[in-house]
Amino acid sequence: MNTFGRLFRVTTFGESHGPALGAVVDGCPARIPLAEADIQPLLDRRRPGTGPLVSPRAEADRVAILSGVFEGVTTGTPIALVVMNEQARSSDYDALRDVYRPGHADITYAAKYGVRDHRGGGRSSGRETIGRVAAGAIALKLLSLRGIAVAGRVVSIHGVEGEAAMVAEIAAAAARGDSVGGIVEVVATGVPAGLGDPVFGKLDAAIAGALMGIGAVKGVEIGDGFAVAARFGSENNDPILPGGSGSNRAGGILGGISTGAPIVARCAVKPTPSIALPQRTVDAAGEAVEIRVGGRHDPCIAPRLVPVAEAMLGLVLADALLLHDAYGR
Amino acid sequence: MNTFGRLFRVTTFGESHGPALGAVVDGCPARIPLAEADIQPLLDRRRPGTGPLVSPRAEADRVAILSGVFEGVTTGTPIALVVMNEQARSSDYDALRDVYRPGHADITYAAKYGVRDHRGGGRSSGRETIGRVAAGAIALKLLSLRGIAVAGRVVSIHGVEGEAAMVAEIAAAAARGDSVGGIVEVVATGVPAGLGDPVFGKLDAAIAGALMGIGAVKGVEIGDGFAVAARFGSENNDPILPGGSGSNRAGGILGGISTGAPIVARCAVKPTPSIALPQRTVDAAGEAVEIRVGGRHDPCIAPRLVPVAEAMLGLVLADALLLHDAYGR
Amino acid sequence: MNTFGRLFRVTTFGESHGPALGAVVDGCPARIPLAEADIQPLLDRRRPGTGPLVSPRAEADRVAILSGVFEGVTTGTPIALVVMNEQARSSDYDALRDVYRPGHADITYAAKYGVRDHRGGGRSSGRETIGRVAAGAIALKLLSLRGIAVAGRVVSIHGVEGEAAMVAEIAAAAARGDSVGGIVEVVATGVPAGLGDPVFGKLDAAIAGALMGIGAVKGVEIGDGFAVAARFGSENNDPILPGGSGSNRAGGILGGISTGAPIVARCAVKPTPSIALPQRTVDAAGEAVEIRVGGRHDPCIAPRLVPVAEAMLGLVLADALLLHDAYGR
Amino acid sequence: MNTFGRLFRVTTFGESHGPALGAVVDGCPARIPLAEADIQPLLDRRRPGTGPLVSPRAEADRVAILSGVFEGVTTGTPIALVVMNEQARSSDYDALRDVYRPGHADITYAAKYGVRDHRGGGRSSGRETIGRVAAGAIALKLLSLRGIAVAGRVVSIHGVEGEAAMVAEIAAAAARGDSVGGIVEVVATGVPAGLGDPVFGKLDAAIAGALMGIGAVKGVEIGDGFAVAARFGSENNDPILPGGSGSNRAGGILGGISTGAPIVARCAVKPTPSIALPQRTVDAAGEAVEIRVGGRHDPCIAPRLVPVAEAMLGLVLADALLLHDAYGR
Repeated sequence: MNTFGRLFRVTTFGESHGPALGAVVDGCPARIPLAEADIQPLLDRRRPGTGPLVSPRAEADRVAILSGVFEGVTTGTPIALVVMNEQARSSDYDALRDVYRPGHADITYAAKYGVRDHRGGGRSSGRETIGRVAAGAIALKLLSLRGIAVAGRVVSIHGVEGEAAMVAEIAAAAARGDSVGGIVEVVATGVPAGLGDPVFGKLDAAIAGALMGIGAVKGVEIGDGFAVAARFGSENNDPILPGGSGSNRAGGILGGISTGAPIVARCAVKPTPSIALPQRTVDAAGEAVEIRVGGRHDPCIAPRLVPVAEAMLGLVLADALLLHDAYGR
Repeated sequence: MNTFGRLFRVTTFGESHGPALGAVVDGCPARIPLAEADIQPLLDRRRPGTGPLVSPRAEADRVAILSGVFEGVTTGTPIALVVMNEQARSSDYDALRDVYRPGHADITYAAKYGVRDHRGGGRSSGRETIGRVAAGAIALKLLSLRGIAVAGRVVSIHGVEGEAAMVAEIAAAAARGDSVGGIVEVVATGVPAGLGDPVFGKLDAAIAGALMGIGAVKGVEIGDGFAVAARFGSENNDPILPGGSGSNRAGGILGGISTGAPIVARCAVKPTPSIALPQRTVDAAGEAVEIRVGGRHDPCIAPRLVPVAEAMLGLVLADALLLHDAYGR
Repeated sequence: MNTFGRLFRVTTFGESHGPALGAVVDGCPARIPLAEADIQPLLDRRRPGTGPLVSPRAEADRVAILSGVFEGVTTGTPIALVVMNEQARSSDYDALRDVYRPGHADITYAAKYGVRDHRGGGRSSGRETIGRVAAGAIALKLLSLRGIAVAGRVVSIHGVEGEAAMVAEIAAAAARGDSVGGIVEVVATGVPAGLGDPVFGKLDAAIAGALMGIGAVKGVEIGDGFAVAARFGSENNDPILPGGSGSNRAGGILGGISTGAPIVARCAVKPTPSIALPQRTVDAAGEAVEIRVGGRHDPCIAPRLVPVAEAMLGLVLADALLLHDAYGR
Repeated sequence: MNTFGRLFRVTTFGESHGPALGAVVDGCPARIPLAEADIQPLLDRRRPGTGPLVSPRAEADRVAILSGVFEGVTTGTPIALVVMNEQARSSDYDALRDVYRPGHADITYAAKYGVRDHRGGGRSSGRETIGRVAAGAIALKLLSLRGIAVAGRVVSIHGVEGEAAMVAEIAAAAARGDSVGGIVEVVATGVPAGLGDPVFGKLDAAIAGALMGIGAVKGVEIGDGFAVAARFGSENNDPILPGGSGSNRAGGILGGISTGAPIVARCAVKPTPSIALPQRTVDAAGEAVEIRVGGRHDPCIAPRLVPVAEAMLGLVLADALLLHDAYGR
């Protein structure tokens, strides 16, 4: 449940306000050059307080490699990655111990486990993605050695495109104590044809599961996605031309297998559920209460989701690449 | 790769024009009343030639249970399900042996495996779903005994809603030798709160992977899906009220765990890639050729995808239910 | 639970007196020449009534390939294998419906599932190995193309070695309505160094699990096995010499990874629990009864276990070989 | 490869002389009381320098819980466990950088990965078991809450039984710079009938794989094990009596499923391969060299293997118990 992948496997752990977060990467090939410096940049991009679209905050999130690397290269053994949590003021969350925030996992964790770490969302916090991103950085390193690159971007915020306009949408919502949603796109280039395993391990199925498994994502599409539902076949099929296709409506995947064209996926990201405006909810006793979620929260989570989506796509592709290698190269 | 699920596990097999298709269901609890009559109706619904939205054709697709059932109840051992292929005219496909149909998996299978069964699409045929649907029917039976019901429907065809209008869209496309896409929705009711496993086994991630893994699906969304990207948090959060919520924008899942509200998922289905209109493609030697795909093909695959989507949602939920049971409820 | 392997995966199904037994092999590489004739010989060797050590009986056990092979080669898709059960006289087993045979799984299946197919042992019958053997034959074919051969033999019966002596032991036991145990050895030659994955996927661990998972096996050892417990290190270590080692006490595995020397494993096989002599047991109501198990039963199961052990070792090695290939060698 | 279990899952990491060793336990039920004090005692038992049969040495091996526990109970999220390696004198191992110790995994790791951490055996060190033991302690805690106890012991050393005689055997070997092997037994009591999943997840198969996967183990047997190979059926079958059986030759498992009687397993442990006596081997260039392995090494590894075997049996049973719970009992 906390392990992802078949050959390039990642197990993550950690809560928002526990001692540490991290991941164990099992199945990374040996002899890949690797150091913390390969991982830290992607972690830095997911940190709060970087970039024009997110609010400033101070957390270091320094990663340490505890195993699996010797004299600068991977050894084929598990790579344990840890980020220690700094001293967080957990008491800030005392008010949330017995109340369920709307749009959050508070009520479902309580239903599932009968117990929860309420501090900062515990395991359901956005900080959980630290483990994914750290592990994903290793996957992306492996892919880069095979000529595959992954890049993400914010496509739109609140239905608006263009960076200045998107920044304005976020600022306007924040000013009212509200939040907004957006759309994030990730693209992988250099992917060879033939990755992906029919029928339940299709590459698009794996990508969809990987991206929908990121908190706040409510929709995933590949290539032209939902737009295809309103098309004719004659306008949707990519013609196949000698040397490639002139179009890529399929988003680089046919029948669950990569075509060699860029792989294109998009996620719909919901507005941050933590807002300062009053909301109706219940407490642990089931009594109706009103809640305003204080503290500093990103008014839009989409920008910070970009490196997470890159990491997840990287994990899917690294796994698919090793599976492909297993069968006859 | 051809196995789905962790506890309620399904392995499918079979090609369009091989001797048989089917599935092995492993992990179905013992003492569930089961007979072919529980499975055949869902298979009949996926057959061609049923319902107002699809074209008539004659195939029996009779399922046989080969194991795992004794004196009318499951025994806890694997349930093997087989549907024999009737004598198909494979020679109809001789022209496709060395040419790749646009929008199909012909070219990607060739890239991946270096060999392919070209007859009717082989493993990438829509007939592959017979195994899923047969297995899914058992999952749905299990769920029904726990008070959970799954139902799907076509939401729109070519952007149009309403059954008469949708039929007209399909008919119009078919008349021109073309095809159209659509949107299919599946809803599960009676799902208890607490199903789904963070962080990589989230219920929405599992559903997204399951539905995107159906051929022709290019997008999946949960609850209000892509619409949330253009919303404010204050209008997207479902308030939590004593005794439930007045809205279900989240589609029954928060933090990857079921809330107890109906689970709602939608798939974008691309237009059938097989069309009678001329298309540009290449043959196995890489030479440019023109192709018109003859034979009888559904001008819209969305209606036939409904029972497949129900089956896949059933498989996800049956698996999640058993996993939930494992942890002490 | 009924699936074995990580990349070369086998799912088996079927009961002794159900309609059919078989297996689905998923993850066999494409373009391997394969036909029923590659599988039938190993199945024939596991059949009753062949060889000097077993009793004559008449069953055909003809295997049919239902999928995954096209024009004489594997396509990379699942290979479904089926053996239909001939019309067995299930009524022979009516007397066993409500009584538990000592040494058999009757009582544990009843405890686990609350229901069981009592006819011929149902799923716990020796006929269950048909699926394993059919699948194992494909693994052995794959291995043979890579220069790896697997061969098994009966080492001893009732503590006695030599074929004539072993036959005499079996005959003597059978004459008294009793049965005897024995030891079976399997050896793989041509295995390259480097197969096996520390720490939980060690090659010896996988072999031990595979062989102990055969019915009637109560012990497994690798190389010199239990004998090492009474040795000094100076006499147990295999010296490493240029060009190989002069000894192979380790049985071809060090640290869970193959050394390149032959892999040697042995299984302790218990006496057939079905004997004609009277035994004390209980019925389903818990009442004490005396039982004599009639019908034709092998007085020693060890000889028939040889092809099953070969099949299981083949499955382990095929899986390890593909895993090894995945990591770039 | 470094993950064990299906529902109670453990992923271990770490090398002998790297920064840390540890494990992530995923799938432990919520609301189990847990603290470091539940784990440390089993770790202490596996440390060098405790008990009459092992040599004194000083290492702390203090475990820290990094996640998954909140206010003294498990939360259902992954439990990360870490033991930091103290400053070891890695330079002691410089002489082993380019030479392969007989009986060790040095040569097979080099063959498999093309690179290895030679310091203290790296991942193939006995210190790797720290992660297993720490995780196993949690499994044993869970089992204890269900009335299941696991206990191990050294049965014999160099073929000799009795503690004083065994100590003498070890001392005599050590005095000569040699080592000796032994046999370790683990017994689980209180196990309910019905655990284990035919056919590939049989309880005895899982135990065999788990125990054979411990370094230095070359054989595993269940119940009377290899002795059954020289018996008649009439003397090997346990009679079934009302209220249980008078004997337990089967070691608590029939048909791969627990009977309710104590589960008994034994491992053959080879003599420590590191000995001070001269041995023939090769260096990384393939040249013949003589080696004497200096430093402090246990002259017999069997005593220290006892808590490791308990941990592995605990992991198998915890997993089997949760799987059993999943199916409705």
